[in-house]
Amino acid sequence: MENLIRFDVTNERNLTMLVDFYELTMGNGYFNKGVQDKIAYFDMFFRKIPDDGGYCIMAGVEQLIQYLNNLNFTNSDIEFLKSKNLFSEEFLEYLRNFKFECDVWAIPEGNFVFPYQPLVTVRGPVVQAQFIETMLLLTINHQTLIATKANRICRAAAGRTVMEFGSRRAQGYDGAIYGSRAAIIGGCDSTACTISDKYFNVPAVGTMAHSWVQLFDSEYEAFKAWAESYPDNCSLLIDTYNVLKSGLPNAIKVFDEVLKPLGKRPNSIRIDSGDIAYLTKKCRKILDDAGYKDCRILVSNSLDEHIIRDVLNQGACIDAFGVGERLITAKSEPVFGGVYKLVAVENDDKIVPKIKISENTEKITNPGFKKIYRIFDKDTDNAIADLITLHDEVIDETKPLEIFHPIETWKRKRITNFYAKELMVKIFDKGNLVYKSPSVLEIKEFSKKESKKMWPEILRFENPHTYYVDLSQKLWDLKQELLHRGSY
Amino acid sequence: MENLIRFDVTNERNLTMLVDFYELTMGNGYFNKGVQDKIAYFDMFFRKIPDDGGYCIMAGVEQLIQYLNNLNFTNSDIEFLKSKNLFSEEFLEYLRNFKFECDVWAIPEGNFVFPYQPLVTVRGPVVQAQFIETMLLLTINHQTLIATKANRICRAAAGRTVMEFGSRRAQGYDGAIYGSRAAIIGGCDSTACTISDKYFNVPAVGTMAHSWVQLFDSEYEAFKAWAESYPDNCSLLIDTYNVLKSGLPNAIKVFDEVLKPLGKRPNSIRIDSGDIAYLTKKCRKILDDAGYKDCRILVSNSLDEHIIRDVLNQGACIDAFGVGERLITAKSEPVFGGVYKLVAVENDDKIVPKIKISENTEKITNPGFKKIYRIFDKDTDNAIADLITLHDEVIDETKPLEIFHPIETWKRKRITNFYAKELMVKIFDKGNLVYKSPSVLEIKEFSKKESKKMWPEILRFENPHTYYVDLSQKLWDLKQELLHRGSY
Repeated sequence: MENLIRFDVTNERNLTMLVDFYELTMGNGYFNKGVQDKIAYFDMFFRKIPDDGGYCIMAGVEQLIQYLNNLNFTNSDIEFLKSKNLFSEEFLEYLRNFKFECDVWAIPEGNFVFPYQPLVTVRGPVVQAQFIETMLLLTINHQTLIATKANRICRAAAGRTVMEFGSRRAQGYDGAIYGSRAAIIGGCDSTACTISDKYFNVPAVGTMAHSWVQLFDSEYEAFKAWAESYPDNCSLLIDTYNVLKSGLPNAIKVFDEVLKPLGKRPNSIRIDSGDIAYLTKKCRKILDDAGYKDCRILVSNSLDEHIIRDVLNQGACIDAFGVGERLITAKSEPVFGGVYKLVAVENDDKIVPKIKISENTEKITNPGFKKIYRIFDKDTDNAIADLITLHDEVIDETKPLEIFHPIETWKRKRITNFYAKELMVKIFDKGNLVYKSPSVLEIKEFSKKESKKMWPEILRFENPHTYYVDLSQKLWDLKQELLHRGSY
Repeated sequence: MENLIRFDVTNERNLTMLVDFYELTMGNGYFNKGVQDKIAYFDMFFRKIPDDGGYCIMAGVEQLIQYLNNLNFTNSDIEFLKSKNLFSEEFLEYLRNFKFECDVWAIPEGNFVFPYQPLVTVRGPVVQAQFIETMLLLTINHQTLIATKANRICRAAAGRTVMEFGSRRAQGYDGAIYGSRAAIIGGCDSTACTISDKYFNVPAVGTMAHSWVQLFDSEYEAFKAWAESYPDNCSLLIDTYNVLKSGLPNAIKVFDEVLKPLGKRPNSIRIDSGDIAYLTKKCRKILDDAGYKDCRILVSNSLDEHIIRDVLNQGACIDAFGVGERLITAKSEPVFGGVYKLVAVENDDKIVPKIKISENTEKITNPGFKKIYRIFDKDTDNAIADLITLHDEVIDETKPLEIFHPIETWKRKRITNFYAKELMVKIFDKGNLVYKSPSVLEIKEFSKKESKKMWPEILRFENPHTYYVDLSQKLWDLKQELLHRGSY
């Protein structure tokens, strides 16, 4: 087993008790009614893409794996639960000897994912499959949110470097650590978060704060001290006092006086305040005129995809963006609303589909044990649609495939010359890990390749096209049947 | 020392390397220039109250203490840093033998805090005082954000129970764990997050999910099974299929058939979707008519302070709110923008104040080593203003005190019959912990008492009055002097 697990952060602490209390009252209730081993199927899926975007980037599977692989209750956990005087001795004994036994399927990280398709499916004894809800949602919701936001920001940066700078404004330590992991998956080039470099082998970067500049008797002294310390990688923060009157002239003086005699070139200047469109254009010209055409211009200061796109449209001269709070918290929409719903149970080895009804049509679940096919055009490799089917359906690639809108069913499309790829992979088989996560940088590369298969209409910021996620005829029929049953 | 530390989560893992990379490049730079031991003063403060509110609730000090008290680099940390080929052997050796030596002052948790006042002040060797920036900001920013949001939500609930339900949508594991801690400090009565109960001794609560209802052959069967399992604490989720047509009638049937014969009363019903103003009024009447006036009504589903206030204004019959994603992520404004700025250095034991200038007036820092007095009316105990002074200033309570607006200086106020209380307390003395955090529930109680000292004008949601945070004449003069110096 060991060889399937990379550096495992959850080994350092036991997160088994990071669970909504109702998972435990339900668990105890199953035992009370003797149904704890009934086989249940749960889907994790989401309903809405943040920021009214056209896609999300799946992330967090590796941490979900680590959590599931380490599930165990310590003695002190059991004592704590016992002290509640709520749980039966039988249930506590079960937890004491807990051994994970579920099957788990997930869409691998870096994939483009869409509303209403299962991102994760769990099959197993209901007491277990229910218990893992909280951490499964927490893990996938958080990282998918940040990977998606990062992808938008990198898309706006249009090939320029994007550095994740948000640790200090993250929501908790893991918000920083796993947030930066997800940001890299979404496309960021580097992070300021040192521990993420150590854990995930993603490049950490950083130079100086304003305090470095303030510590010395003058800005010039501070820049000089820096250039002497880092002649091979000299990046100066030029907005502590005044960018154009003080920061840039002092920087150029130091480039001339310290670096030039050593035969070194400056790396960059960084601006962290003010009008970055105006300032970067001014700085670019002054740097160029001073013979530093190769000196890059870095900017930071409350950036997001909209500001980046806007200043680039205005001709800002920027080589790299440091993006902080608005990325690490996904500020514009900081919630990824993934849910985890019971979709089937087994009665005497027969799968019985279950549905959750709601007045709100979009809250009605897709019942049954399912899988997802992504349909690609054979010639262009473009993704045409996703088709959710029951688990035993096979798509015949040799025949035309008719898909239809699951609500406006008259909207139909006939697809020929395609191939179909299953999206979910099995990650646990009866509790045994059977999948090895790629490295973070591998996931990032994979995601970048996948983006080339998506129509540009899906990828744009404003009013993106809604990617087709349709149901097979068999699944659609099943859903209608359950919807119209009418008595519960 | 041990007795000053409660359950210490950071003991479980070493977060020393959760640091922005530039803290390390600067640290190495200090060594390179031989200034690593220069004594520096840093203030942590914020500029803007989230949601345009009138106050914030300080939180996170206990976790900051735990971090500072556990700072140490492992061999693998040092090896990792060495592999960067960027840091001197002298610097790495220093980190290898790192011993925290700073003085730290902080405003205790639960206090009402306001923009531009130091929440934390650090004095010590610049290499150390700078290094702790990332975690100090991350810790205080996150918990203060959530405590503040929770306080707004509890204020809207106007004395009704508020339960924190957000773990599954939190931004990372600590977002859930420390987020629920902060939510309790802000006023929540309980949390769904089991591990927070175990860690912080705050009450965890929970009942059932829709999946419990779906698992059984009918809603009635599911409710019956629950009532039989939890006759003393029966709370039923009634919106899996249809609240009024199915959920509530089935619940009442079970109350009648299962609980009544046992002589038990139901605890509550919960509604998680639909129009909660309309539904709770209907449910209240039906429950009352059925003889269940004591059955409480719980609601959840994307609540925040505005929705709560609105449905209560419409006469919704609600006893308790379960608040999830909009609390645990502070969705409406998910960033608390605390910053950490150099404000002074010592030269030959003399304190030399430092300032950070900016085109944006609000980004200019308050220089010097300072303290904060909160001025209270002697008769009413109401907080009148906060006065930031230099560290050696003493307020004479026997004489009238004149305060003035730091920018519109003609706005002046003469205060008599007052007493002054210092807000910050020392938590570390030359690296030694000298403060014991109260328990989370003690902090919550303290905060509730403090709220009674705040004018209602500060506490309202819309256009709250701006609480006075003024500078002493001496501090104001010093700031002007540095501002007008003009050369850097």
